[in-house]
Amino acid sequence: MQERAKATRRSLLEAAAQLFAEQGYSATSVNDISARSGRTSGAVYFHYTCKEGIAVAVVEDRFATWSQLTTPYEDETVPPLERLVALSYDIAHALTQDTVTRAGARLWAERTTIKATLPDPFALWTAAATRLLAQARLAGHLNEHIRPARTARALVRAFFGLCILTEALDGTTVLDDRLTDWWHLTLPSLRREAARENLPASR
Amino acid sequence: MQERAKATRRSLLEAAAQLFAEQGYSATSVNDISARSGRTSGAVYFHYTCKEGIAVAVVEDRFATWSQLTTPYEDETVPPLERLVALSYDIAHALTQDTVTRAGARLWAERTTIKATLPDPFALWTAAATRLLAQARLAGHLNEHIRPARTARALVRAFFGLCILTEALDGTTVLDDRLTDWWHLTLPSLRREAARENLPASR
Repeated sequence: MQERAKATRRSLLEAAAQLFAEQGYSATSVNDISARSGRTSGAVYFHYTCKEGIAVAVVEDRFATWSQLTTPYEDETVPPLERLVALSYDIAHALTQDTVTRAGARLWAERTTIKATLPDPFALWTAAATRLLAQARLAGHLNEHIRPARTARALVRAFFGLCILTEALDGTTVLDDRLTDWWHLTLPSLRREAARENLPASR
Repeated sequence: MQERAKATRRSLLEAAAQLFAEQGYSATSVNDISARSGRTSGAVYFHYTCKEGIAVAVVEDRFATWSQLTTPYEDETVPPLERLVALSYDIAHALTQDTVTRAGARLWAERTTIKATLPDPFALWTAAATRLLAQARLAGHLNEHIRPARTARALVRAFFGLCILTEALDGTTVLDDRLTDWWHLTLPSLRREAARENLPASR
């Protein structure tokens, strides 16, 4: 794709994400996206075919792939459980602060009203958490009763529920504190006895 | 209220709950509720004034109050942490099997599209969990690092997130297993060291 076409596509995606995050999918029209982006409706249809197409693109861009969050997760000099915890804070921050991620989460919550199949973000997150737990086991850091795949499923679902409910009920400013409370409840069970002394300090 | 009026009111509430649980708030009309209940639209407006009124009544009836779930929670012969765990399974079952509870949860998720203030179920649940944790502390069963109010908030949010995401992603049949996985991750941190040996068996 030419640079100019890429820039147009990106500006449409960012404008749509702002609107989806602010007012939801059904209240947002292609005309709204055109007005917010300063591009024509024709540009929207050229790049994304329909409103459903742009919703799928928004979810894929960040929420379902964490395209910008892989760095701390890849660094093998950091112990795997520390990477898991660090990644959770990065995801929580993206969910509260990054418009495209926020829009993706809102669209996923509204998925029954969207006539398109949105990518499932949780399969990818669960696979990443499973891998980190398996690495922790290899490194001898994991409680021997923990089965990585089952535990990753429970962790991802509880973590994401904690984030969206905390934001809905208590606002975004307390999310770091709540996440720290939750890790203090959860991390001791993940760790091998000998490794349990070093709970992370509150962040 | 006369018995007959009470029966009418109840049948309207049950019919509305079925429809809200199946197809959501915005897709359900007062005419649909009338047709499902076999009563007139006039009866709906007489008993509930408007569609918003019946939504509030559905949320209040079960989801926000747990009116039928207080029994295991009140029994003081059972240790408080066991009551907390038992209550969580009862709530999970209601969320998957009881139509009025399911409707309440769906309406709460759709609250931004409803022009009425729905009762907040989480304040009541968090207060109940706080009380059970405080009772566990008095009984000497609670890890001394646990602060009941903060911990109750994190528990309720993670628990409810686990339930709704598990249902959305994996279906209701696995919810008991996922909840057991989650308690195995969480309960050891709640318990005093000496009391940690007796994890509950899978249910």
